[in-house]
Amino acid sequence: MTGMSFEKVIKGRIPLLKWLPLYRGKDALGDLVAGLTVGLTLIPQAIAYAGLAGLSPQYGLYSALIGSFVYIVFGTCKEVNIGPTALISLLTFTYARGIPEYAILLCFLSGCITIIFGILRLGFLVEFVSMPVVAGFTSATSLIIACSQIKGLLGLKIHAESFLDIWKELYNNIGQTRLPDLILSCCCIFVLILLKILKDIKFRNQFLRTFFWFLGTGRNALVVLLCAVASYIFEIRHGAPFLLTGHIDAGLPRVESPSFTITVRNETQTFLDICKHFGSGIIVVPLISIIGNVAIAKAFYFFLARGQTLDATQEMLTLGLCNVIGSFFQSMPITGSFSRSAVNNASGVRTPLGGLYTGILVILALSLLTPYFYYIPKATLSSVIISAVIFMIEINIIRPIWRSSKRDLIPGFITFLACLFAGVELGILIGIAIDLLILIYINARPTMYIEYRNNPIANYVLVRPSAGLLFPAVDYLRIYLTETLNDNKYKKSLKYSKNLKYVVLDCGYIDKIDFTAAQGISTLIKDFKDNDRFLILLRPTTEILQSIQSLINESIVTAKTDVELLTILKEFNEIRCIDSESYAIPDDFKRKTVVDMRDELASTNL
Amino acid sequence: MTGMSFEKVIKGRIPLLKWLPLYRGKDALGDLVAGLTVGLTLIPQAIAYAGLAGLSPQYGLYSALIGSFVYIVFGTCKEVNIGPTALISLLTFTYARGIPEYAILLCFLSGCITIIFGILRLGFLVEFVSMPVVAGFTSATSLIIACSQIKGLLGLKIHAESFLDIWKELYNNIGQTRLPDLILSCCCIFVLILLKILKDIKFRNQFLRTFFWFLGTGRNALVVLLCAVASYIFEIRHGAPFLLTGHIDAGLPRVESPSFTITVRNETQTFLDICKHFGSGIIVVPLISIIGNVAIAKAFYFFLARGQTLDATQEMLTLGLCNVIGSFFQSMPITGSFSRSAVNNASGVRTPLGGLYTGILVILALSLLTPYFYYIPKATLSSVIISAVIFMIEINIIRPIWRSSKRDLIPGFITFLACLFAGVELGILIGIAIDLLILIYINARPTMYIEYRNNPIANYVLVRPSAGLLFPAVDYLRIYLTETLNDNKYKKSLKYSKNLKYVVLDCGYIDKIDFTAAQGISTLIKDFKDNDRFLILLRPTTEILQSIQSLINESIVTAKTDVELLTILKEFNEIRCIDSESYAIPDDFKRKTVVDMRDELASTNL
Repeated sequence: MTGMSFEKVIKGRIPLLKWLPLYRGKDALGDLVAGLTVGLTLIPQAIAYAGLAGLSPQYGLYSALIGSFVYIVFGTCKEVNIGPTALISLLTFTYARGIPEYAILLCFLSGCITIIFGILRLGFLVEFVSMPVVAGFTSATSLIIACSQIKGLLGLKIHAESFLDIWKELYNNIGQTRLPDLILSCCCIFVLILLKILKDIKFRNQFLRTFFWFLGTGRNALVVLLCAVASYIFEIRHGAPFLLTGHIDAGLPRVESPSFTITVRNETQTFLDICKHFGSGIIVVPLISIIGNVAIAKAFYFFLARGQTLDATQEMLTLGLCNVIGSFFQSMPITGSFSRSAVNNASGVRTPLGGLYTGILVILALSLLTPYFYYIPKATLSSVIISAVIFMIEINIIRPIWRSSKRDLIPGFITFLACLFAGVELGILIGIAIDLLILIYINARPTMYIEYRNNPIANYVLVRPSAGLLFPAVDYLRIYLTETLNDNKYKKSLKYSKNLKYVVLDCGYIDKIDFTAAQGISTLIKDFKDNDRFLILLRPTTEILQSIQSLINESIVTAKTDVELLTILKEFNEIRCIDSESYAIPDDFKRKTVVDMRDELASTNL
Repeated sequence: MTGMSFEKVIKGRIPLLKWLPLYRGKDALGDLVAGLTVGLTLIPQAIAYAGLAGLSPQYGLYSALIGSFVYIVFGTCKEVNIGPTALISLLTFTYARGIPEYAILLCFLSGCITIIFGILRLGFLVEFVSMPVVAGFTSATSLIIACSQIKGLLGLKIHAESFLDIWKELYNNIGQTRLPDLILSCCCIFVLILLKILKDIKFRNQFLRTFFWFLGTGRNALVVLLCAVASYIFEIRHGAPFLLTGHIDAGLPRVESPSFTITVRNETQTFLDICKHFGSGIIVVPLISIIGNVAIAKAFYFFLARGQTLDATQEMLTLGLCNVIGSFFQSMPITGSFSRSAVNNASGVRTPLGGLYTGILVILALSLLTPYFYYIPKATLSSVIISAVIFMIEINIIRPIWRSSKRDLIPGFITFLACLFAGVELGILIGIAIDLLILIYINARPTMYIEYRNNPIANYVLVRPSAGLLFPAVDYLRIYLTETLNDNKYKKSLKYSKNLKYVVLDCGYIDKIDFTAAQGISTLIKDFKDNDRFLILLRPTTEILQSIQSLINESIVTAKTDVELLTILKEFNEIRCIDSESYAIPDDFKRKTVVDMRDELASTNL
């Protein structure tokens, strides 16, 4: 038995052992095609995202290298491709300020934290980020990234981080726009978007469809290749008119431990200094990586016939390992990329082994192609980034949220605006906080369904709170019940008697109660009794009843069904005299109804 | 109409106008007796609490002065007495460090913030402090206050703030204990507690009962008087052996605006400097005052036959006004005192006018008695404080919480320990945070009630989540439903067919849904369908159904009753073939039951 479960644990932690023995020839073909396709997307993205992080292009390729290999062994979701992404590159720039040693150390630390998160099984934290908040966050970061690339489109050299700074600097420098870069950018973006649209068109002709699908999927590589060739031809003739990527260190990255003391501008910084410099980044970068990665894995890997569900812990451990090992190969922080995972899926990947071919392609690019990367125009890379991120601005989610649950637009929009104007890290925290406040508010102010029931035996008020009864709601319930019974405006609606001294608390929706609420209700029962009124609990669970009963000596009047309730009311009425107070229902009292209970009585034969 | 409602608003804001016209002779007698009795409790407490705040005794009396008068006009609850309290004095010492100008300015600022809280109607914030947290907080502060007074009992002169420091200093200085002070303390505490116990004994003899009630109620004044007389006699003979209170400024306080620039140790501090010095105190002091005051008002004023409920806003405005006006009479921060309000109640107070006599008694004390306060031994004052606060350590609440809702002991104890070891202000915040985390957890992990229903038409699984379905819970529900259906361990329990492809989600407890949850369930419905399985919603509200339906094109299968459910299952089964997968129930699966549905079927005649 121990051997069995040990084997299971090992297979859970190294999923390769599970699927490799079942590997077949047809898997190999699927993986090969998908792996190479993803590689063609990954390489231009890697170079571009390195620029986004303020690093020279080879660091992008270094970052693209290790994720693919490590994920083969430890990954659980065949579609996921781990490498540089636009969002994490933006965060890397924020915290590492374009210094490679910083970025590499951040990658190492972020990996360590991710592994710790995995070991402590903190993956559930991701559940506290609701979809509107994710959408607001993704849209805002995409917009910031897109705006940050406008300088590349225009051939400007400006440095700005925040959304507002970007626009200020663009406004100040717009006069220095380089026409050739601008023309090139427009062409690139036009071609990229055209190919993306053609890819998704359902041509009747199978060949056309396949042709445009391949063209569309490899559009980044294609555009980069064409532009680089054009630049090369310009350059050897009379100098390229565009800003070029410039020199890239050729060859594979040196394999060495990340530096824990870094000398910046002749100042040696200790490990602690650097940690202080990173600040919240040490937590924010891994957290955002995890959110991204788990979201992708969930999207592709939700329901399997075998009933497996996503092992979020394993995904976190793998992601952490990719970053830690990556940092020894000079990688900047990496995570799962949604766009490349989608390519993987569309290319028919069969197992995580597809990553092998992606990785090999990156190695080939680093070994053989680096001299040619010199010629890639910066405007082309900016175009690649912009064409990728503008489709991540989730305008399309507004309509379904509006139709499904309008209130959820609030956290979405607040997150979006906060990310734009207060920074992405603070923005997502603000969004989560607002979501939780709404959650707490819903618990504190349950909807009250109320009926004034009017029948010959006894009038009573039926109140049904909508949610579990916990401490923030109990005062509200107390005040509500007291005011309900005492409202002097009720007059004409009560037909059979003007007496209204029974409040029935329908516990049908109440599943949980805490001490504060139990105390509140027990006080209420006593206070009602002292004033010759009665609070009757309808359908309480045993747990709730015990919880309240443990706090008072008098026995609580309860009814399990409506019929039992009427019996109880009848008994009460026979032994008590009726006083002459009267009540009526004001017109402005919403959600309140008066029900004539004659039919109910008839059916129960009382 | 406008005149009417204007009059109502005025009467709401100046409750004096409501009750004064109805004032009768018998009210006057009750108020007189109660007012004087409260005064006799208030004066010794005021002197003692001034010491607790590190101020000289007259400031305690100044603080006792204004609250009583202002509350007559604006107060809503006849029992409440506003003045110095042990807790607020402790906080005043923390923030004002024994400098009178600081304490007075803190009183002014705290009053302003309280008024702002009242205007913004932020009184509901008090609802987010659960009873276990209040109990933990009160107990910890009472314990800290009691311990801080041990030095007085022993005649030591030490300065320490935090709980740990107090004990460290006591340990270091225990050798300097003054025997006369110690003996006096023991006698005082013995007498005080004896009188308190005698007060509550139900003697058969009416005279004895009344005698001990008065003696017990006035015990603080009595003990202070006796000890002062003893000290006086000692002093004129050969010097008192105890540490005495010493000189007190005679007469009423000067009426002047609080200083907004204060010179401390030859350093002039601007208003901003002082605010920075107070820091969180500017919020914490009014917040704790409000919590205390509202809690007292609630305790004495919950249910009135006329259906009025406590106007928390008015209470906050009044409390703020007491502090703001008080600060012009050199008061330190004040709030409602539970012990004095209880005395007020027990003495038969009829209207807030009782405060008039309390206030007059304080004026008399300040004008005539101050020379004699010199002789009050410090040990006596410490005894008065300790005898008051040790009964506020709420050991008695542990039992009811244990019986009613064990989980609620966690926030209670954590608050208690955090207040002791991390400071009272941080402690209560930690307690509130833990409470809210538990609340969020309950929303994120609803209890799932599950039944495997076994009948000849179709086997199905019925899952009923316990709470509203909001974003943190939806992943849990998705995983739960998927695993429930796919669990391969289920085998023998299904009698009529080995097929299990229907999951019925009972929405009986679900009243609310948000976008993330609606999205999750709609995805689930699609995923189930893709795998030839079916998710059926039982008893969803229209709102929930619309919310989910707006996100998918396929129509959702719903049933309003169990009978309708069986009809639907029958229809499904007739048009679909049965496959041969099999399931069983493992022994360790808790909360799951298998129900044979033959009876149910029989009754529905299907």
